[in-house]
Amino acid sequence: MRIGMIAPPWFPLPPQGYGGIELVVSLLTEGLVRDGHDVTLFASGDSKTLARLSFVYDRAPRELIATASYIEIVHGLEAYTRAREFDVIHDHDGFASRAMGALVHRLVGTPVVATLHGPADAATQESLASLRENLRFIAISDYQRHGFPDLSFVATIPNAIDFDSYPFSAEKDDYLLFVGRMIDDKGAHTAVEVARRLSSRLILVGKINEEAEREYFAAKVEPLLTDDMYYRGEVDTSTKLELYKNARCTLFPIQWPEPFGLVMIESMAAGTPVVAFRHGSVPGVIDDGRTGFIVETVDEMVEAVRRVGEIDPEECRRVAEERFGIPRFVAAHVAAYRRLLDEGPLGTTMAGVMPGTE
Amino acid sequence: MRIGMIAPPWFPLPPQGYGGIELVVSLLTEGLVRDGHDVTLFASGDSKTLARLSFVYDRAPRELIATASYIEIVHGLEAYTRAREFDVIHDHDGFASRAMGALVHRLVGTPVVATLHGPADAATQESLASLRENLRFIAISDYQRHGFPDLSFVATIPNAIDFDSYPFSAEKDDYLLFVGRMIDDKGAHTAVEVARRLSSRLILVGKINEEAEREYFAAKVEPLLTDDMYYRGEVDTSTKLELYKNARCTLFPIQWPEPFGLVMIESMAAGTPVVAFRHGSVPGVIDDGRTGFIVETVDEMVEAVRRVGEIDPEECRRVAEERFGIPRFVAAHVAAYRRLLDEGPLGTTMAGVMPGTE
Repeated sequence: MRIGMIAPPWFPLPPQGYGGIELVVSLLTEGLVRDGHDVTLFASGDSKTLARLSFVYDRAPRELIATASYIEIVHGLEAYTRAREFDVIHDHDGFASRAMGALVHRLVGTPVVATLHGPADAATQESLASLRENLRFIAISDYQRHGFPDLSFVATIPNAIDFDSYPFSAEKDDYLLFVGRMIDDKGAHTAVEVARRLSSRLILVGKINEEAEREYFAAKVEPLLTDDMYYRGEVDTSTKLELYKNARCTLFPIQWPEPFGLVMIESMAAGTPVVAFRHGSVPGVIDDGRTGFIVETVDEMVEAVRRVGEIDPEECRRVAEERFGIPRFVAAHVAAYRRLLDEGPLGTTMAGVMPGTE
Repeated sequence: MRIGMIAPPWFPLPPQGYGGIELVVSLLTEGLVRDGHDVTLFASGDSKTLARLSFVYDRAPRELIATASYIEIVHGLEAYTRAREFDVIHDHDGFASRAMGALVHRLVGTPVVATLHGPADAATQESLASLRENLRFIAISDYQRHGFPDLSFVATIPNAIDFDSYPFSAEKDDYLLFVGRMIDDKGAHTAVEVARRLSSRLILVGKINEEAEREYFAAKVEPLLTDDMYYRGEVDTSTKLELYKNARCTLFPIQWPEPFGLVMIESMAAGTPVVAFRHGSVPGVIDDGRTGFIVETVDEMVEAVRRVGEIDPEECRRVAEERFGIPRFVAAHVAAYRRLLDEGPLGTTMAGVMPGTE
């Protein structure tokens, strides 16, 4: 299949730090090439890929992300003017790029699908509603998808991680782990409460850069830390993977409907079960009793942590890899692209060349 | 001709106050309909037009102009998804809309032309350069056009005004008139200096809303006002037309390359000559010695004001109307649209339907 893959222009693929969307697009692109597909990747020129790289900006213009909205348009236009070279175009960029995708899907007939990477806030719902007749979508969780009831989805495909880069251990240390920003939504204060009630060791990882994070940590987390609890700040990737690998379990006490939750999958990849509150994407990520426990209250979280020994680390990793590994991720996208091709053109266009459906 | 006319969505057509672009698009649209063309106007739903009105927003969302960039895209998308209904599409909106126009011109084959309404600043030059192979442009002055040497223009068409709504008088009062914002670029301080040297009456019209305007006026204008000089602030349209009609001449002492300069045309319509510095569009608007005088220094401006009696008010208006009236404006656009149609498709697309040029 000839696939045009539009990454955001702001960070190189794969990203060297910040850039969650870019990381996922990189995994998908490399997987599709290894699977034998003919992929043209539209990304910044400092990206590394097995695909054919096409770029307008030779270096990712990350410093302009807040001010120069035209860059997204110039970047996407380069891809969409070449629409007829592809069997399908997959867009991971912003609304202006998707609008061009809708035009191409409707008027040129090249199927375009856009992955929704963010939550269903009001502005996103309102703007995307204008594309509903002319564009198809991929959701990253059923929870996220329910936030866009008017859009036409071809698939729900959870993000993948590269399990090969996640070390595994069946032997666990005795600490609990929390990974997340220091804000109310992520619930570090609940992780501390749970650890206190269990008189357990706890390691906290997560950034404190912004004023709100500093205030939250100083008011709701720091005063409750015992001698067995350790806030590590932000850590590099290898340290993070070691911490996942050796933890007794990872606590995911979120207080809001997290649309995806990469932390859960990273922990399961290390063979470390996750105990999480039932919000947002959690029920779609954790297999209750096999890769962790889903709970509703602090009491239940305390009780579940006592039972994490029941979960087999090897099964935890295996189940997670089946669902969130790259092979499944790539195959799900190929299936989605084929569904899109089978659907045929949206009609009205290419009269006399392809049959219209309107 | 079936014409799709895309106005900005932010103010209704015709505008009830602010909205210079909307005013010009309204004059063009009504003129084309009167000329027998089949025009669909894409504007806010509270617009008034003889054309077929198509809208996404039933009320102009002016309060969102600074924050909701997606509105421009949703608005333009409605027009461009219907590209095949038109012989030509004329875009007056922002960069995101033009990018969609470039896609349609290139891939669908419907000719799209965009009028440049603003100056050639660096961000505009850089972003529009990405459209140069796929979009055609109309400039509003030769000066503006020279700022975009890489773009492909089909015409330079100065903005028009509706001469019927400008009262004329051959009899003039003895005051000089200045109309413009209170900022250095517009040169009110020079108008005051010229009037002082001539011991002449002077009426100043123009807005002071922003801090920079207040500071400029307090520092460079107000201290120099004599008893014969009167700052009127912003005035309503009928007052402005009376002031134009009765002035001895209008001073246009701009200190920067004004890309268009509507004030000059409004004054000439009233039969009132304009004395202006040679910057930007000025040489393209004033017919030196027939509708005013073009000068280079304050000394020359003083001398020219002494000579404005040489200019015949009736000839001033007639010459201006020939060049900046609606009939000429509409005819120039129809000619530009025909040139665009004669040029044929940009190639690569519509293979087998129209001959490609690449």
